[in-house]
Amino acid sequence: MYTATTDQIASVITSQELLAHWQGHRKLTRKLIEAFPEKEFFEYSIGGMRPFAAMIKELLAIAVPGIREIVRGATEQLDEDLKEVNSKAKVLSLWDKSTEELNNYWSQLSDERFHETILAFGKYEGTVYSSILYFIDNEIHHRGQAYVYLRSLGIEPPAFWDR
Amino acid sequence: MYTATTDQIASVITSQELLAHWQGHRKLTRKLIEAFPEKEFFEYSIGGMRPFAAMIKELLAIAVPGIREIVRGATEQLDEDLKEVNSKAKVLSLWDKSTEELNNYWSQLSDERFHETILAFGKYEGTVYSSILYFIDNEIHHRGQAYVYLRSLGIEPPAFWDR
Repeated sequence: MYTATTDQIASVITSQELLAHWQGHRKLTRKLIEAFPEKEFFEYSIGGMRPFAAMIKELLAIAVPGIREIVRGATEQLDEDLKEVNSKAKVLSLWDKSTEELNNYWSQLSDERFHETILAFGKYEGTVYSSILYFIDNEIHHRGQAYVYLRSLGIEPPAFWDR
Repeated sequence: MYTATTDQIASVITSQELLAHWQGHRKLTRKLIEAFPEKEFFEYSIGGMRPFAAMIKELLAIAVPGIREIVRGATEQLDEDLKEVNSKAKVLSLWDKSTEELNNYWSQLSDERFHETILAFGKYEGTVYSSILYFIDNEIHHRGQAYVYLRSLGIEPPAFWDR
């Protein structure tokens, strides 16, 4: 399939596979948003944690700006405020817009860049690939918390494997 | 760094990087186990979900058997029972043993195998790489739930970025 010319680096996951993996997770996260009742999405909390809406605002603030920063090389602000986001419908609309934008920026990200060192949002040092994995992991982490919120509300969440 | 000879496949994450990524997550999961009080680790639950101990038994039942199955090609049983696991000390000891075994089996997994199609535990179809990502994601997912358990117990969990 390939020839490693200088060392043992070899493809175990391709760029397109990593994007599909993330978008699969984003599809499941979208289902979680849909599963919340409107009021609980913005207000329900356990143990002093943030409501799921606040976590979703964080995820929106990370995904497109994070990849755009990697593609353009211009520092982005981590702006989780998103005051105008006050309904699930608005959140879902922003989510879908991000899905498209993510695909667009990703198509501008060349394979050679994944091992470059970057400062995500001007302050988090890592490689391109490790930063992207962090973005994805952070989404899985917070969505896992939303599963507990839903269960404690007596709502059956979408299956984890259903992407 | 490499030459793609037949198509656009290129290395964006290497096998060793994926292992280090997983072991970093496993290190954080270990901290979560440590953070739980003994009794609550085995009994505390929200919304009818499993206690964290049951989730950890699942993770132990997946990690080494899952990779061993990929390496050896012989079907493994998904055995989450682990009746003998009745103390945090025992769990942590099994966790550390798994850490070593995972490294050992991983070293026998060649790069060329990551795109092979397999039936994990004799029933879950996927590629080697997608199955491994599923194992990792499943750990992040359940650990995120344990963060809620700890917060609702008034215990500050380890930071998500601290691996």
